[in-house]
Amino acid sequence: MLQLYFSPMACSLASRIALMEAGIEARYHRADLWTKKVVEDGSDFLSISPKGAVPVLVLENGEKLTENAAVLQYIADLRPESALAPRPGDPDRYRLQEWLSFVGCEIHKAFLFPTFWYKDDAAKAAARERIGKSLSVAADHLAHRDHLVGKGFTVADAYLAWSLLLLGRGGVDVAQWPPLADYLQRMQERSPVRSAIDHEMQLRKVMARQVQNP
Amino acid sequence: MLQLYFSPMACSLASRIALMEAGIEARYHRADLWTKKVVEDGSDFLSISPKGAVPVLVLENGEKLTENAAVLQYIADLRPESALAPRPGDPDRYRLQEWLSFVGCEIHKAFLFPTFWYKDDAAKAAARERIGKSLSVAADHLAHRDHLVGKGFTVADAYLAWSLLLLGRGGVDVAQWPPLADYLQRMQERSPVRSAIDHEMQLRKVMARQVQNP
Repeated sequence: MLQLYFSPMACSLASRIALMEAGIEARYHRADLWTKKVVEDGSDFLSISPKGAVPVLVLENGEKLTENAAVLQYIADLRPESALAPRPGDPDRYRLQEWLSFVGCEIHKAFLFPTFWYKDDAAKAAARERIGKSLSVAADHLAHRDHLVGKGFTVADAYLAWSLLLLGRGGVDVAQWPPLADYLQRMQERSPVRSAIDHEMQLRKVMARQVQNP
Repeated sequence: MLQLYFSPMACSLASRIALMEAGIEARYHRADLWTKKVVEDGSDFLSISPKGAVPVLVLENGEKLTENAAVLQYIADLRPESALAPRPGDPDRYRLQEWLSFVGCEIHKAFLFPTFWYKDDAAKAAARERIGKSLSVAADHLAHRDHLVGKGFTVADAYLAWSLLLLGRGGVDVAQWPPLADYLQRMQERSPVRSAIDHEMQLRKVMARQVQNP
């Protein structure tokens, strides 16, 4: 059985959504990204992945795959009938890779990461200056289409939906870009997406209570 | 014929290397990333790509593909016989995607981008704090292997080699990680890699002279 190392509401949520959309059962292990421990047994998360980041997908053969762009395509290709990615050879496959890179680089790494992990306000401000332009690119693309790539939901949508969901906590109101706000609502109406988000939000709430009442 | 919009020594250098390694002729158009103009005719680069970033690969059908992770895989798949990427379906293809994402997110977007484009020193310092850890991950991987993926040169190597080449200008001495320094030297001994770098370095020098003596 596949195993996914995740942290509630981190970008590994996109991998969870992909697994649920594909109808693939997996074992989920929670990693604490601050202490770098695996929560269930306190073991060293860095021995699972020296990057110390999620997602980490443990494949059936025991190998570990990291980076959402790779993990999401791997999951999609396990169930081609779910059409979570255009098949290799289809020109749209490169569009999928283009959007996975854009979300990973321009929204996640250029904005969300500094916003949540950097302590310095100037570092956060520099990241914030650019995010509007990146979001406008995505909003223009989605102004007259329901999904990022082709005519149906793909793993690129899982990744973008996650990133839009986090923007609010980073102080950016998605409502400024109506096509993105509408898109995020559509995505959240999908049952696997909704279930994945609800589950991880619940885990976050439990975490918050534990921090308040240790 | 394919067309590549590039800026000398920007990450589009990886795309140029891939084209040269694949033996694919292309037309190259220089974009000025500050003024957002196409240098040859002063036209608006944002009308080519609203992202205003390189690389932009114009395909034979006129469509434009952006993001190195996608552009590099597209170029590799045009010439499967060049083995610049494991074929789709090969488990190593996901390793290629993993490294393309890692270089794009952790070295390029998390370090090189803020270092060269942000004005605030605190923003640069925050980026610098993390780069050593990312480089160590790559160095450990390359300690006993010649290439990032499989047994030969792939487009992931084109992207990593470019990023390592830029580190020095960002004030990070690759010599601190001997496997990376050795790797960068090996990569530069490849004739297409060397030619691509020499060509763009030459363009940079001409640019610098034009700025000094306008």
